[in-house]
Amino acid sequence: MPRLYDSVAQQSAGDVDGLDDDHFHDECGVFGVFGHSDAAALAALGLHALQHRGQDAAGIVTYDGSHFHSERHSGLVGDNFSKPHVIARLPGNNAIGHNRYPTAGGSGLQNIQPLFAEFAGGGFAVAHNGNITNARSLTRQLRERGSIFQSTSDTETLLHLVATSAKKPFIDRFIDALRQIEGAYAIVGLTEKKLVGARDPQGVRPLVLGDLDGAYVLTSETCALDIIGARFVRNIEPGEIVVITEKGIESLKPFGENPARFCVFEYVYFARPDSIVSNKNVYDVRKQIGAELARESPVEADIVVPVPDSGTPAAIGFAQAAGIPFDLGIIRNHYVGRTFIQPTDAIRHMGVRLKHNANREVLEGKRIILVDDSIVRGTTSLKIVEMVREAGAAEVHMRIASPPTTDSCFYGVDTPEKSKLIAARMSLEELARYIKVDSLAFLSIDGLYRAAGEDARRNDRPQFCDACFTGDYPTRLTDHQENRTDSQLSLLAVV
Amino acid sequence: MPRLYDSVAQQSAGDVDGLDDDHFHDECGVFGVFGHSDAAALAALGLHALQHRGQDAAGIVTYDGSHFHSERHSGLVGDNFSKPHVIARLPGNNAIGHNRYPTAGGSGLQNIQPLFAEFAGGGFAVAHNGNITNARSLTRQLRERGSIFQSTSDTETLLHLVATSAKKPFIDRFIDALRQIEGAYAIVGLTEKKLVGARDPQGVRPLVLGDLDGAYVLTSETCALDIIGARFVRNIEPGEIVVITEKGIESLKPFGENPARFCVFEYVYFARPDSIVSNKNVYDVRKQIGAELARESPVEADIVVPVPDSGTPAAIGFAQAAGIPFDLGIIRNHYVGRTFIQPTDAIRHMGVRLKHNANREVLEGKRIILVDDSIVRGTTSLKIVEMVREAGAAEVHMRIASPPTTDSCFYGVDTPEKSKLIAARMSLEELARYIKVDSLAFLSIDGLYRAAGEDARRNDRPQFCDACFTGDYPTRLTDHQENRTDSQLSLLAVV
Amino acid sequence: MPRLYDSVAQQSAGDVDGLDDDHFHDECGVFGVFGHSDAAALAALGLHALQHRGQDAAGIVTYDGSHFHSERHSGLVGDNFSKPHVIARLPGNNAIGHNRYPTAGGSGLQNIQPLFAEFAGGGFAVAHNGNITNARSLTRQLRERGSIFQSTSDTETLLHLVATSAKKPFIDRFIDALRQIEGAYAIVGLTEKKLVGARDPQGVRPLVLGDLDGAYVLTSETCALDIIGARFVRNIEPGEIVVITEKGIESLKPFGENPARFCVFEYVYFARPDSIVSNKNVYDVRKQIGAELARESPVEADIVVPVPDSGTPAAIGFAQAAGIPFDLGIIRNHYVGRTFIQPTDAIRHMGVRLKHNANREVLEGKRIILVDDSIVRGTTSLKIVEMVREAGAAEVHMRIASPPTTDSCFYGVDTPEKSKLIAARMSLEELARYIKVDSLAFLSIDGLYRAAGEDARRNDRPQFCDACFTGDYPTRLTDHQENRTDSQLSLLAVV
Amino acid sequence: MPRLYDSVAQQSAGDVDGLDDDHFHDECGVFGVFGHSDAAALAALGLHALQHRGQDAAGIVTYDGSHFHSERHSGLVGDNFSKPHVIARLPGNNAIGHNRYPTAGGSGLQNIQPLFAEFAGGGFAVAHNGNITNARSLTRQLRERGSIFQSTSDTETLLHLVATSAKKPFIDRFIDALRQIEGAYAIVGLTEKKLVGARDPQGVRPLVLGDLDGAYVLTSETCALDIIGARFVRNIEPGEIVVITEKGIESLKPFGENPARFCVFEYVYFARPDSIVSNKNVYDVRKQIGAELARESPVEADIVVPVPDSGTPAAIGFAQAAGIPFDLGIIRNHYVGRTFIQPTDAIRHMGVRLKHNANREVLEGKRIILVDDSIVRGTTSLKIVEMVREAGAAEVHMRIASPPTTDSCFYGVDTPEKSKLIAARMSLEELARYIKVDSLAFLSIDGLYRAAGEDARRNDRPQFCDACFTGDYPTRLTDHQENRTDSQLSLLAVV
Repeated sequence: MPRLYDSVAQQSAGDVDGLDDDHFHDECGVFGVFGHSDAAALAALGLHALQHRGQDAAGIVTYDGSHFHSERHSGLVGDNFSKPHVIARLPGNNAIGHNRYPTAGGSGLQNIQPLFAEFAGGGFAVAHNGNITNARSLTRQLRERGSIFQSTSDTETLLHLVATSAKKPFIDRFIDALRQIEGAYAIVGLTEKKLVGARDPQGVRPLVLGDLDGAYVLTSETCALDIIGARFVRNIEPGEIVVITEKGIESLKPFGENPARFCVFEYVYFARPDSIVSNKNVYDVRKQIGAELARESPVEADIVVPVPDSGTPAAIGFAQAAGIPFDLGIIRNHYVGRTFIQPTDAIRHMGVRLKHNANREVLEGKRIILVDDSIVRGTTSLKIVEMVREAGAAEVHMRIASPPTTDSCFYGVDTPEKSKLIAARMSLEELARYIKVDSLAFLSIDGLYRAAGEDARRNDRPQFCDACFTGDYPTRLTDHQENRTDSQLSLLAVV
Repeated sequence: MPRLYDSVAQQSAGDVDGLDDDHFHDECGVFGVFGHSDAAALAALGLHALQHRGQDAAGIVTYDGSHFHSERHSGLVGDNFSKPHVIARLPGNNAIGHNRYPTAGGSGLQNIQPLFAEFAGGGFAVAHNGNITNARSLTRQLRERGSIFQSTSDTETLLHLVATSAKKPFIDRFIDALRQIEGAYAIVGLTEKKLVGARDPQGVRPLVLGDLDGAYVLTSETCALDIIGARFVRNIEPGEIVVITEKGIESLKPFGENPARFCVFEYVYFARPDSIVSNKNVYDVRKQIGAELARESPVEADIVVPVPDSGTPAAIGFAQAAGIPFDLGIIRNHYVGRTFIQPTDAIRHMGVRLKHNANREVLEGKRIILVDDSIVRGTTSLKIVEMVREAGAAEVHMRIASPPTTDSCFYGVDTPEKSKLIAARMSLEELARYIKVDSLAFLSIDGLYRAAGEDARRNDRPQFCDACFTGDYPTRLTDHQENRTDSQLSLLAVV
Repeated sequence: MPRLYDSVAQQSAGDVDGLDDDHFHDECGVFGVFGHSDAAALAALGLHALQHRGQDAAGIVTYDGSHFHSERHSGLVGDNFSKPHVIARLPGNNAIGHNRYPTAGGSGLQNIQPLFAEFAGGGFAVAHNGNITNARSLTRQLRERGSIFQSTSDTETLLHLVATSAKKPFIDRFIDALRQIEGAYAIVGLTEKKLVGARDPQGVRPLVLGDLDGAYVLTSETCALDIIGARFVRNIEPGEIVVITEKGIESLKPFGENPARFCVFEYVYFARPDSIVSNKNVYDVRKQIGAELARESPVEADIVVPVPDSGTPAAIGFAQAAGIPFDLGIIRNHYVGRTFIQPTDAIRHMGVRLKHNANREVLEGKRIILVDDSIVRGTTSLKIVEMVREAGAAEVHMRIASPPTTDSCFYGVDTPEKSKLIAARMSLEELARYIKVDSLAFLSIDGLYRAAGEDARRNDRPQFCDACFTGDYPTRLTDHQENRTDSQLSLLAVV
Repeated sequence: MPRLYDSVAQQSAGDVDGLDDDHFHDECGVFGVFGHSDAAALAALGLHALQHRGQDAAGIVTYDGSHFHSERHSGLVGDNFSKPHVIARLPGNNAIGHNRYPTAGGSGLQNIQPLFAEFAGGGFAVAHNGNITNARSLTRQLRERGSIFQSTSDTETLLHLVATSAKKPFIDRFIDALRQIEGAYAIVGLTEKKLVGARDPQGVRPLVLGDLDGAYVLTSETCALDIIGARFVRNIEPGEIVVITEKGIESLKPFGENPARFCVFEYVYFARPDSIVSNKNVYDVRKQIGAELARESPVEADIVVPVPDSGTPAAIGFAQAAGIPFDLGIIRNHYVGRTFIQPTDAIRHMGVRLKHNANREVLEGKRIILVDDSIVRGTTSLKIVEMVREAGAAEVHMRIASPPTTDSCFYGVDTPEKSKLIAARMSLEELARYIKVDSLAFLSIDGLYRAAGEDARRNDRPQFCDACFTGDYPTRLTDHQENRTDSQLSLLAVV
């Protein structure tokens, strides 16, 4: 099927991270506020606090009682939404906003959320964290009945489902649309009268409710409430739809009650340490992870060194549990931009040093416990260990604050395909040899569940989505099973 | 109905001409080529030759056998489509292109044509010169059945009509869509297999067929054939649809035979003097207009002076017919950009001098016949006459190369509303007094028809569309009669 | 000698005209105003009127009583100096400005004039039209005494000469500097107290004085007075320095009285037709040139056709003198930007059509007298004639409104070196054959002098600088005789 | 004295950090490499590693054997020097580079270093970390002899001193220039044959020598050697000039031997923790500082919490010495760009949360020891303490890892004037009350000297420059004593 390459749409393509950043990446953060005179400014602050969930692009849509207003830009929130004249172009008391992570395909300007559509019954803006796993199949059906798609975003599929629904009041059309989609999502939407929030039936992606002087706030993590001084009220529940109007908040559960399966990787890496997601403080869970790891896989050593910054809380937890000093043996350079040169072969292997440098005085002659959050492709671990050894470490013991990542994620997370996941290809021993450590240990899956407050994984009905560690997916994967890997890109269109 | 203000979409807003350019303005030029290895470069050259039909933005879409490619930019063709790397991003042997005139509303990037849609049956790009006079009414119906609009362009209405047509082969869907629209149009469209061209049943807007070494070319005026060295084959006829494929060209007349009513204003001002439109050379018609004017409204004078450049051919015709010397008494500055300051009250009245300066040596003490193509609001004429008088002219006799413009155009031409047209508000004597001339004469409607090769206007079935002079519109004006003047803007949307 | 390539400085490089525009080009226009509250806006308007003298870049410096303010931009005046906020950044009642023509070397941002220096005695801004023919030699001496150059502009040489002068009051330092330079110049300069104007001893480059409600204006041509409504007072005389302060205007003649040798090519091509330069109206001289040409080289023909726009006044003069109809057989497209593609060999020969198109209806079967202002390299003439013949002309008689250009100009005009000048390489017959005309005639040098109001050229002491036609240079050419052609570029530096 | 405001020069103005970042800021990092085929790429990597020393702008100059090449850009190294085509514009085996911190005045493009001048004897590029404390006085003298300044950078003063020196070989001119300047500096310079490095006689600013496969490297800190894999050879000594040519390295000591007075604040805050400066590892000194602080000012508490990131090493040292757990009670958001909105009064007090958020789960109910590196204006401390208290801390004990900063720095560090330094205005008790802590302690000056490896401060001849803590300046402050505070800005000029 043909595909349109459009220069307007492609402006931000190529901005993908050139660094060997060996992590899973969350694709989005969402924010909505209803009934506050600073709505756009609050959305900008909230999106800034959620910047770790997506750095590629950001957008805000407001409604001022008669018109919708939209600003969508490639780049960081702070670089694009910090000027008074930008905020001034976003009048109104109701706003939703979105951060996007740079995915390989689909990084056109027309894909920056919130998306907006003018229905016969009025305007609707929507922002989405997650992934609709039957989006391609639904898009094909919609196109056959005459719908024209303008983006490659699965979020547009949702818009067309609402537009073509046979139901009548808006909220019934919205539920009708959600009924047709599979996958994981946390959605905020804005109409002329309502702010709506929705979480998928398993509650894979996070969404919390806050209160700021009587104004309602919906957002991915509590750190976005903290930055605006809002009070955390509660999680939106799995499968719950909240409808916020001038009259207050209404909660709907059109899909019945479902057992929750919150994404456990939010605790491992995605969420900010100071956030509460699914009712637990992330820093706390990570320190517990470190402590579990120290108990499961102890080793005699001189110092515990984190791979900063993601390994730091678990390293602190490990050090305290093991009674071994915590020390900054690796220093991180936070000024790394989006890309950087590695212009010649001779200096290409220095890549890792753009972000990290070994602190020789700390490491020399020492037995090191190196703590990182996860190993995805293994490339960075290899270089970090090499750098630590070149700085004179006597022994290097790697401790990973999660189980081996053996499976891809289809729920709005940017992961390599399974064949690129090193833990899916190597045994523990092979992997230890490959990255050249004296010992290597991952956290057990039960250890992870314990750190997250459970006694152990209930294998018949797991308490979390842990598919990336277990291959046990909580929803159907229609598009993936159809195996039409390039088709989603073919939607790339423009008007 | 609400309306979305989108920063991405609005980037080119505000680029409207700040000058007091007192003319009607054509809104578009179109170009298509099928079967030439330089398709995109030819389209760029053709659009450059048609630049007078629209300077706000331009776009080209090509098809390379497997993908469509699109480049759309605000600004001049020469500034945006002249670099090899831009042309290199437009591979393929088939191309269509479009120039846009800056209209007050709807100047978003998403409105730059050609527009593109991915139908269930494949991609379709379309570019359009003209105006669909029932677009708002059709859009309302389409939206009620679930179509989502992304632009404020009436061209998108056509796309949705094709997308939702119940017919089957593409060309039947296209005809089905055209059947539903009223108004004036010259359309070029590109699918994976075909270049299509279509002209409205009255043939109001121009479209010609050319041949370049066996490749087919469709475009608004023959000057776009000349620039690429293509041969002029024939006019596309009113109501004709041509379908060009690898097998050749096919002509369809789904609306039967209709009496042509070509826009007579193309001869007065829109078309380039070196073009042939509707089978007549424009320069020739304009010189005839000048000659008719000299016969209808002679006056004793020393020199004939054009208001450059649009008054020049008629002034030459007038001078030759009257036997009075032709002289450049007003010099035009062609470097005027899109806007210019008039920063203080004290110097605001100099505005007209940004474009025109009186040549005192030529004018001083002389009796001047000043020839201009038309008077719309009258503001420029007033200032030009004042400037000519200040330069010492003894007498100023204004001769206008068209009848009084008393009515708005709804066929893709940017005209003020009727109440702003000075000839609709003032008698000839009042107008002469207002612009302070010693005498004033317009061409008669029959004089205009004679200059264009007819004996006279057939009032029962006029040979041209002359609605701007007569109020006699050749089609229904559904949207206008509904009188919902702001609603078209409310479509402004974005994905 | 080494040379610095600087990315900041080179930003506008590559903007050179990609078109085969076969003309000499003037390098600059200057403007100064003293004592008007709209100084910057007037300068912007004046520079806009002088845009034909240089389209590459423009700059304005104002003084507000305590600070100097500078705005310098690549591109057209109308595109950069038309916004209120730009004018607002240029407060003050005194201003000078400059337009620059794009020369092959030296197009860095740091070369955009006016240049500014802070002397021990105060600030000085200066703008210059012309060329210092011993700039390289002076620069070498200045550098040896420790001066650091930041641009490749010969104007900076003047600044250093003033800075290092041993004299005391500013005006004596300025005269001391001028005494050391050879060449042709029209200079406007601004200090905290004064607007100064200076013209080289031969008066090669033009400079006129105007009056706007008591404010003084200095500028290259009277068209810049017209646009602001200023009254033309008089020419600045050859070798004259005028010093304008709050007390009025003072005239100095430090170099004694010299016979004037105004650049005759200003009449042929550089100046705007509506300007008065050296006391003659340019359009009038050009019509006289046409008339002289008709008398010197008559030919039987059907129509006189100008190569627009520069050939138009002479063609009108020719037509009126010869009694042959004037007609627009070639139409010019004014939307040509700075460059344009000629992306493939197959369509490269269409280059000339980007600017000009033959009007077949006018030319077909006719005997044509084609009037152009000059022939430099001959490339455009060749293509124009070919185009006119392809359009069906029966005969083509070329008449050139100047003598053959056989020598380069060193006085601030962009000319090819002598070996590229076709009239320096070919006889009249060879040239006629080369460009394929039925007959070819240039104006005689005496004919040119007659058109400019003289009886004939006084060969012992010519009334004009006509070096490009005669090789008779009115000043020494120190740098040229040293023949260090690349050295000027080596100045390109940056701080 | 007048001053030029130039739009070209001022492009980066206004980019100053809008955040309340209450620190002293170093103004520069320098880097030079001689004899490596990847010179520009190495310089880019080195400058990236030194990004903490200046984020406003960066520049690189290379020499390729016949020409100098320069790239200078506002913004981060990674954003401007990471693209292969930029590095390709910087050919040659020798390079110098510079990072600049955004200072209030003088942020024009023309001030981005390295600066370059073409002397009679050849080109010279120079980059400088530090400040010439008699620059204004020297500039006045230079201007009186005819030098024209183009920037407000004191580095240009050095260029003019070299240009006007009466000495002959380049290196003698360079020494002659240095002899005339007072202040603190670490300079790298590049001629056609040489890379030179120079450190002021007291060695206030750092400069180290490295070796990369035989190529010489000069740079501010060893972290810039680590990133390119270069070996640390030695410090450049106070008052030493090194001259690197193809024949090797030569060391000159034209100012004799001087007691070193390295800037002790480099250990407190400026340098990167993984660097060695003045022969000590920065992280190590900072941990020692924490330990000294724990000994000097112990307090009973539950956890030690750093104000990240600058307080972290001292907090780790404090925690280990005191035996109190270290915990991340404040989380830092590293995505903060250059500025951010605080668009309304109601949310303005959230400013500090753009960078820092309290981690309530960690702090609630705890007695906190908060460790920060310094207090400058006190504004941030006030907000941090308030935030920590709002998060539920039972007690807050602030410990500062340096003595009170009571005096401004004049050696290339951006500090507020003395009257803005809160420690110069308040007693310890007043300050503790002002920032609302339960207790407050600064490190003693002797404690700081101990942490840096000395027994104590030798008050007659201090081992470090500690003027910001003691007011004891190691050089004359000619410009400051002249007290012409605005005059340096008046140099802002342009060509």
